[in-house]
Amino acid sequence: MTDPAVSPAVAEDEVALASPFLQSLVRLIRAQDSHGSWDGKADAELLADFIVSKEQRRTIPIIGDPDPDVLWRLDKFYTAVALSIEERWGLMASPMIEMSHEGFGRVLFAAGRLVVLSKTLRDVHRFGFETFCKLAAAGTKLVDEAIAAIETYPEVARA
Amino acid sequence: MTDPAVSPAVAEDEVALASPFLQSLVRLIRAQDSHGSWDGKADAELLADFIVSKEQRRTIPIIGDPDPDVLWRLDKFYTAVALSIEERWGLMASPMIEMSHEGFGRVLFAAGRLVVLSKTLRDVHRFGFETFCKLAAAGTKLVDEAIAAIETYPEVARA
Repeated sequence: MTDPAVSPAVAEDEVALASPFLQSLVRLIRAQDSHGSWDGKADAELLADFIVSKEQRRTIPIIGDPDPDVLWRLDKFYTAVALSIEERWGLMASPMIEMSHEGFGRVLFAAGRLVVLSKTLRDVHRFGFETFCKLAAAGTKLVDEAIAAIETYPEVARA
Repeated sequence: MTDPAVSPAVAEDEVALASPFLQSLVRLIRAQDSHGSWDGKADAELLADFIVSKEQRRTIPIIGDPDPDVLWRLDKFYTAVALSIEERWGLMASPMIEMSHEGFGRVLFAAGRLVVLSKTLRDVHRFGFETFCKLAAAGTKLVDEAIAAIETYPEVARA
């Protein structure tokens, strides 16, 4: 039975927040909270900055260096991908992020001699997702791609 | 017959300067000289900044950000490695360089899905070589390592 008071969007958020990828991301963020000042905060609050609506995107200038907060989120997002790969595969895939001042860049994950994931970054200034669901889907897709590459070349990933 | 006027050190430099790796490095540097102002300069002059004696090393402070000139040389050195790999193998291996402010970092070359070369950087502030011979040997060794990895996993490098 569905609670009629819960809107579909809220239910969607709950499913997304329970996904292994968002749980990894939340764990990473909470791990930085050495004074426990975020203990009272819900997961959704901690991840709120990852959500950028279409209207908000348009207002973010893309001139100059990307905001340090955006770079922090980008780093956390890709580290959560690495963490999720490790959880599913058992070995660490280390991410390297290269960024130009114009907000273009590249992310590469290596495990052993295998390039597990390689992605061009664009529009870093506006890094964000419309909904928790899209955030979870984007992370999960990268993890799935990486695991597929590892399954194709398992001996190279262990080399 | 050896010319008695040529010292062994000078002869060694000549051999090193003729090596494919140093020739790649020289080509890279000359390619940046769009106004032809270095046309009259010998190869040894263009590469002079790569040579750092033991005494000079000791005087270079390792506090603060590495000098932009050092980063330029580091970048040229590793790009020459990539260029030499391409010359011998036929396909490009793209380098990614990640650097902390403390002069530690990592260089990774990827070709297809293969990590062709992965190296930790230390002491970047003092990047340099005692002789042309050591510079040529260091670059050639990296190229050889990369080619060996490609020959071990050729299908991954083309993936």
